[in-house]
Amino acid sequence: MTKNMVLSAAQWTKYFQTTKCFEKALQKVKVITVENGTAQAELKVEEEHTNVMGGLHGGLSATLVDCISSYALLSDKNGGTASVSVDLHTTYLKGAKIGDEILIDAKTIRAGKTLAFLEVLIKNKATGDLLVKGSHTKYILRS
Amino acid sequence: MTKNMVLSAAQWTKYFQTTKCFEKALQKVKVITVENGTAQAELKVEEEHTNVMGGLHGGLSATLVDCISSYALLSDKNGGTASVSVDLHTTYLKGAKIGDEILIDAKTIRAGKTLAFLEVLIKNKATGDLLVKGSHTKYILRS
Amino acid sequence: MTKNMVLSAAQWTKYFQTTKCFEKALQKVKVITVENGTAQAELKVEEEHTNVMGGLHGGLSATLVDCISSYALLSDKNGGTASVSVDLHTTYLKGAKIGDEILIDAKTIRAGKTLAFLEVLIKNKATGDLLVKGSHTKYILRS
Amino acid sequence: MTKNMVLSAAQWTKYFQTTKCFEKALQKVKVITVENGTAQAELKVEEEHTNVMGGLHGGLSATLVDCISSYALLSDKNGGTASVSVDLHTTYLKGAKIGDEILIDAKTIRAGKTLAFLEVLIKNKATGDLLVKGSHTKYILRS
Repeated sequence: MTKNMVLSAAQWTKYFQTTKCFEKALQKVKVITVENGTAQAELKVEEEHTNVMGGLHGGLSATLVDCISSYALLSDKNGGTASVSVDLHTTYLKGAKIGDEILIDAKTIRAGKTLAFLEVLIKNKATGDLLVKGSHTKYILRS
Repeated sequence: MTKNMVLSAAQWTKYFQTTKCFEKALQKVKVITVENGTAQAELKVEEEHTNVMGGLHGGLSATLVDCISSYALLSDKNGGTASVSVDLHTTYLKGAKIGDEILIDAKTIRAGKTLAFLEVLIKNKATGDLLVKGSHTKYILRS
Repeated sequence: MTKNMVLSAAQWTKYFQTTKCFEKALQKVKVITVENGTAQAELKVEEEHTNVMGGLHGGLSATLVDCISSYALLSDKNGGTASVSVDLHTTYLKGAKIGDEILIDAKTIRAGKTLAFLEVLIKNKATGDLLVKGSHTKYILRS
Repeated sequence: MTKNMVLSAAQWTKYFQTTKCFEKALQKVKVITVENGTAQAELKVEEEHTNVMGGLHGGLSATLVDCISSYALLSDKNGGTASVSVDLHTTYLKGAKIGDEILIDAKTIRAGKTLAFLEVLIKNKATGDLLVKGSHTKYILRS
């Protein structure tokens, strides 16, 4: 993240739609809220989000865990202005298919002086079923 | 993976270029070898592979770990014809920037009756530095 | 776990005190509840639970994540009668020292046909601070 | 680890036998070498190392990953004199039973200014089979 990149939910959504960076893979993701170390987003699964079996792609899920938790952290009072990933762990509990709507819910568990611990739950919006559980450890770059 | 999707390296590379699935994020990845439970690929980092700080995106790295190890598994004699992710763990040791060439090296550590354990190393091609270390646990769907 | 080893909280506590197996490392752990896929336990940290710096040992924390979540699973209606670990991931957020009382809170996130996903939170009883966050993936042995 | 706790292999083995800390769970572990960021140890599995199914206990394996990699790090030229765990990830590929001899092989993958990345492989000594694969991320305390 560049310095002071504390964007609003609407600005993150806009960013996905216009960036030439890897986050363009999230161009159909809508960020709902980003505040106080938390962030929520949603996505309707389309073909571009799936693997060849027609299920939500594990790489996209990992990307969602990475990005949405990073935005959550940026909004935390102790989150710093930039951070880099150290460990990312994603557990896949259930699949999702084209047409399913998913919710991505990220929160800062702890932001210390140099390390931050984030958690992300990805759920099926209609059923509430937990699909993916992510843990993200980041190193905060203090300027 | 769909049944019997045992593609050659050239076919995987072609697949990335033509698919409408999430793997189109890998359209500039070149798969070098896929055989006996291993797979190697390479990529020259461009803007589309980076985060806003200009570094190789952690979500792309996770996607590479997920996908390249899955192709490695498909080529294993005990790898089955389809599998789903259970756990994906990615550790980020060093960054890469635009212009860097990276190597992705995946291998099957063990493919048992129902579970497979894969490992992926992403290295800087020029320096040999280890950038990302990934572990991937999959559940093999036996038909 | 051996077949039908569905013990009560008091029986697990007793087991720790009398076993010759590795769980004797937990002989001062008190299991409070085990029911419906959840388990809670507590421990007052003594020298035998620490590393040479006098802090709660990371290996003990991992053992607590492993064991207490396994007992939680055994009490789940879909937990089966035996299971083996596949992946264990422990994130260390904060330390604990001799004299601190800790709470170990485990729950079954999902128990499917063959795989179970467990989560464990270890907290400081007095402050409520989260110390350790654990994820445990198990393979259920169906007889 | 306390400052300057750079012990030799024999001294670590002795430490396990005499400590009142949690490492006494490793009192039958023999450390073979500790040098240049690596460490090797071995253990003959006895009842005290097992779960109720008679297999090598997952908590002990995690403890071995934690400890042996920490000693490896202490012997690294860039390993510092003390460090704390951030993330510990253990993947269980195969079991071991009473009477089996196991080898624990730890190495420092990278020790940077503040973070260190360690890897541990636990193998069956007789067959060479990989039993456990561990990743350990530590935060180095620079004085």
